[in-house]
Amino acid sequence: MIAVLCGGVGAARFLSGLLQVVDPGDVVAVVNTGDDTELHGLCISPDLDTITYTLSGRVNPVTGWGFAGDDFTTMQALEALGGDTWFRLGNRDLATHLYRTGRLRAGASLSEVTAELARAFGLGLVLLPMSDDPVRTVLRLADGGEVGFQDYFVRLRHSVAVRGVRFSGAEQASPAPGVLESLAAASIIVIAPSNPVVSIDPILSVPGVRALLGSRRAHVVGVSPIVAGAALKGPADRLLVELGGEATAAGVARWMAEVCGTLVIDAADSDQVPGVEACGMRCVVTPTVMGTPGIAAALARTVLSSGGPDTDRIPVAG
Amino acid sequence: MIAVLCGGVGAARFLSGLLQVVDPGDVVAVVNTGDDTELHGLCISPDLDTITYTLSGRVNPVTGWGFAGDDFTTMQALEALGGDTWFRLGNRDLATHLYRTGRLRAGASLSEVTAELARAFGLGLVLLPMSDDPVRTVLRLADGGEVGFQDYFVRLRHSVAVRGVRFSGAEQASPAPGVLESLAAASIIVIAPSNPVVSIDPILSVPGVRALLGSRRAHVVGVSPIVAGAALKGPADRLLVELGGEATAAGVARWMAEVCGTLVIDAADSDQVPGVEACGMRCVVTPTVMGTPGIAAALARTVLSSGGPDTDRIPVAG
Repeated sequence: MIAVLCGGVGAARFLSGLLQVVDPGDVVAVVNTGDDTELHGLCISPDLDTITYTLSGRVNPVTGWGFAGDDFTTMQALEALGGDTWFRLGNRDLATHLYRTGRLRAGASLSEVTAELARAFGLGLVLLPMSDDPVRTVLRLADGGEVGFQDYFVRLRHSVAVRGVRFSGAEQASPAPGVLESLAAASIIVIAPSNPVVSIDPILSVPGVRALLGSRRAHVVGVSPIVAGAALKGPADRLLVELGGEATAAGVARWMAEVCGTLVIDAADSDQVPGVEACGMRCVVTPTVMGTPGIAAALARTVLSSGGPDTDRIPVAG
Repeated sequence: MIAVLCGGVGAARFLSGLLQVVDPGDVVAVVNTGDDTELHGLCISPDLDTITYTLSGRVNPVTGWGFAGDDFTTMQALEALGGDTWFRLGNRDLATHLYRTGRLRAGASLSEVTAELARAFGLGLVLLPMSDDPVRTVLRLADGGEVGFQDYFVRLRHSVAVRGVRFSGAEQASPAPGVLESLAAASIIVIAPSNPVVSIDPILSVPGVRALLGSRRAHVVGVSPIVAGAALKGPADRLLVELGGEATAAGVARWMAEVCGTLVIDAADSDQVPGVEACGMRCVVTPTVMGTPGIAAALARTVLSSGGPDTDRIPVAG
């Protein structure tokens, strides 16, 4: 079994590749919910939805989130009423949030709802939220004020200086059912090419997860989301620097060294190998920019073959 | 000033007529919120919305609720997910619920949100919910079980036998700001042609309203929603009988005699005059089936001229 720690778009693309080369039933994705938010009374889980829409072939390929070909008549009507529309919810996307919110208000757990939605979208893998309890990524800005993740990421377009990040509620949270069990049993634990600061760290902040990964470090393979000194998408490069790290593959290695024994970096970053190895990590160099399904599948194969002692137990296609 | 106690479709049509003949700024509509419900986490106020959509010219003329020409892609997507879709929420209609829910969750009162929506839809009258506190119409069925109003009205299509009605939360509720003041100050209080059992009685159940109307009974004019022994829309006829009344104009008179000094009944019901007068009410006979704007305006004029001692102080056009 393969466990994958996931953020949004990068993780979704990695999972697409992975599901081409292994049995989906052998994959457990543990997904960041620190980005979750409540808007207009609706419970929104952006990373879970991005993965669900991507793996079901429904995602908008241009934005990487929301439905392909969705329309926005509800948002347009809301705008005419003077409502908040900075977070664009397409009409088909809204159905997911209505479903989730209705079920949560009826007493279902986020895990249960996530499983129901995964089934409805025909996903073959196991999709787990990192926790059924609310954990919220909060960013401290240069002016000392704090904003929630979506305020930072969408409303402010991640163009403001960040001085700190915290995961509100993490200390009181429990891992969702199956999370620790999957991470303990997995032949390989992949850290998908997601933002280390605001996609992976929230998962690690859930009690028990960081320690378990640390104890299984030899089986943990990360994929650097930084290529040639920049994030392919989002503010990972900027955040790493703002929080005292470095926006390089070696910087990613240093950020994750405690929990990750191997880092896969892009072919453009071969000069970073010494820096990665200096963190006590194995370093694998391969194309990581998943521009085509073929590259994503090849990356998945490389990751699976880099996973330490138990890797040869995973049947890989192609 | 003219105060109107309102349910949904019948009240909306009556208000349309009224606003043709008086200054909208002189009209205060006090609207039933016993039908309000929460679905998918969204706060839905069907009677307020039906009035808002009707008076802004946006209502679906076929159903009497929702937007004309709305589309239902969100509902279709929700159906595909296995969600509850018996309460059909069109895409544009959804925007109203998102706005309301977002504002309520942010701490606004239903009165405040209602005023904001009325302004956004360009309404000239004052629209007041009967209460900012939750009051919920609950129906006891023949099998002893209870259902909420929308379950009864929409999901079960009001085709089940009802043994009792109660207004959950009414005893603890306060009238919304302006309700008692408007009813006390109005030259005439109109009870719109709405279901007496589940549209008007919830308003009367809010502490202070029934007593105030009783004390101003000479100024209260009702319009019978029962014409020729049947409700034009909805289950008023059936409910009156099931709850021990009679589905006739005289039955409506008996139901409302305590709070209403005059009843306007349809021309088809002239044989009901003695029965109405037997309740100690004045009876006015006129066409009440508002098939055209002209009939609605004429009905409004007749109602205004039937309103007892202060009626001559209301300027009426046409």
